[in-house]
Amino acid sequence: MKNSSNKIRIAVDAMGGDYAPDNQILGAAMAAKALKESIAVTLVGKEKVIKELLNKEGIHLDNLNIENADEVITMSDVPSETYKTKPNSSLAVAVRLQKEKKSDGFVSAGNTGAVLANSLLRLGRIEGIDRPTIGNIFPGQRREVMMFDAGASTDCKPKHLLEFAVMGSLFMSNMLGINNPKVGLLSIGEEKSKGNELTFEAYKLLENSGLNFVGNIEGGDVLTNKVDVVVCDGFVGNIVLKFAESIIEYLKVKFKKYASQGFFKKLWMGMISGTVKNILYDLSYEHYGGVPLLGINGVAIIGHGKSSPLAIKNMILRAEEMVKSRINDKIKEMLKDYKLISNNN
Amino acid sequence: MKNSSNKIRIAVDAMGGDYAPDNQILGAAMAAKALKESIAVTLVGKEKVIKELLNKEGIHLDNLNIENADEVITMSDVPSETYKTKPNSSLAVAVRLQKEKKSDGFVSAGNTGAVLANSLLRLGRIEGIDRPTIGNIFPGQRREVMMFDAGASTDCKPKHLLEFAVMGSLFMSNMLGINNPKVGLLSIGEEKSKGNELTFEAYKLLENSGLNFVGNIEGGDVLTNKVDVVVCDGFVGNIVLKFAESIIEYLKVKFKKYASQGFFKKLWMGMISGTVKNILYDLSYEHYGGVPLLGINGVAIIGHGKSSPLAIKNMILRAEEMVKSRINDKIKEMLKDYKLISNNN
Repeated sequence: MKNSSNKIRIAVDAMGGDYAPDNQILGAAMAAKALKESIAVTLVGKEKVIKELLNKEGIHLDNLNIENADEVITMSDVPSETYKTKPNSSLAVAVRLQKEKKSDGFVSAGNTGAVLANSLLRLGRIEGIDRPTIGNIFPGQRREVMMFDAGASTDCKPKHLLEFAVMGSLFMSNMLGINNPKVGLLSIGEEKSKGNELTFEAYKLLENSGLNFVGNIEGGDVLTNKVDVVVCDGFVGNIVLKFAESIIEYLKVKFKKYASQGFFKKLWMGMISGTVKNILYDLSYEHYGGVPLLGINGVAIIGHGKSSPLAIKNMILRAEEMVKSRINDKIKEMLKDYKLISNNN
Repeated sequence: MKNSSNKIRIAVDAMGGDYAPDNQILGAAMAAKALKESIAVTLVGKEKVIKELLNKEGIHLDNLNIENADEVITMSDVPSETYKTKPNSSLAVAVRLQKEKKSDGFVSAGNTGAVLANSLLRLGRIEGIDRPTIGNIFPGQRREVMMFDAGASTDCKPKHLLEFAVMGSLFMSNMLGINNPKVGLLSIGEEKSKGNELTFEAYKLLENSGLNFVGNIEGGDVLTNKVDVVVCDGFVGNIVLKFAESIIEYLKVKFKKYASQGFFKKLWMGMISGTVKNILYDLSYEHYGGVPLLGINGVAIIGHGKSSPLAIKNMILRAEEMVKSRINDKIKEMLKDYKLISNNN
């Protein structure tokens, strides 16, 4: 792969996602064009297919390359096993480029479990981190809120929640510009005495962590911007995330049902539907592009299966920002202070 | 307390709730009036205060009585300790009436933790049930969905989730008329292999339970009516419930923000706000009245702190239905079949 001196190199899993490789290729081209001077994008996947599509779209960019990968992860694969079963998948090759220092980060809209397994097993963990975490971005009432973990790690120990809090705080301050982000522990009551065995112990660790820990928050405060970083295990986080995503579809069904109650209601709903869509747009996750996988020795952005070209572009830009921010170095640095706490639990 | 032969006797914790005793008294009167022939309602609380309010409102009903209770649980009490610290609270007396066979059920809009502790410690558990459960009603896309547990029991073992499923199924079929209700285990993927240590084991129990178990469901399927009974531990359930409740406020904020973008948007939002409110009404929990506490030796309905008189009335009617349905007898009966499964876990 031809590569340019000082450019940040981002690999794109071109075959991962519901609309791959089309959206992946279009999004990669958008990113390469937008940051012509500062990034080089590598599309990883079946070279012939990618070339044909680039030609068809008339895309010819100096900073957009192809790296061949013969295998494609499909619905019939067990995601977590693709590390072994498909060592030459577009995902595996995209990750391997980073391992071999031929790229600085990668993005994938493929299966999350597969991204997780391939990243973890090929790149390894950051020293001092036991469990990687996926940070989900929620559109809060006033501004973004992030939840760590949104599904990477279930059955957590207290120290894992501390790790999530450390990584999440650093991500919020370095990537989203939130100074000294407030950290909340997701629980079932604000009092320290409310929660489960995991949160009781995690509370103590967070309390003494030096992070800006404000205590427990309830499910009703995830979206109120009471905190910037919501900490929970990946089981709870994933359930809340999926529930939140389902609200848009739920409201659509309710609005449709209302419109079906008569001609005038239908007409009226037609008139106001654009307004309602505008308002609900905030609740849709598409415009965030992707979410980071933290705790691995590398930079990875995970996107929705249905990612649009714009979402893919945003994922690439976010990966570039992550590389520039040297977030992993900062995590390593910060972890030194937490070693003692962490080792005792 | 004067009592009538064949009437179902429901005690009301008249001092529990944000608008107590006013809403409690008005709601009790509404219920007593509506079911004059079949129920007797006892208002439990400070007799003098209650009498004054009844007189002020001109309420004089043969089937509406008062039982004095001198103590009131306040915000400064530790809810779970009120069992000991306030043995003569309106809640404690309401529960005790049932213990002494002087009533058949009670309703309270007071602190849930206090209701839970008082019920559990005064009435005891149904034989064969380790953990009580609060069932929350969600307004699904087409019809109601119930979640067990919504916050009574955290740190559950697999057999507790089986207990919730048994009680939940019986409640759905007996109280909500859903024949052979579908049971789903809340998890982070539909496959049996997705979840955490708790769900892996609970899956096996549910699979062999003879219940209409359809497998794992994700957070996104809580509201889609894919299942009738959602089973999870009370930590997860409470977080999802509180998150769901927060959506209405969240949307209000978003709508307001949109309206603030200019005069015409404001005017337009004013015009459509009634419609939007109508549609969102389904998402508001007030009209459900209350939710059941199952697994105790008695009948208890828990309401929102902010319960309106109508909500209190609905809670009383629901308690009456629960008594009539003999749900606890049915739970005992059904548990006989589950003893073997349960004891092995």
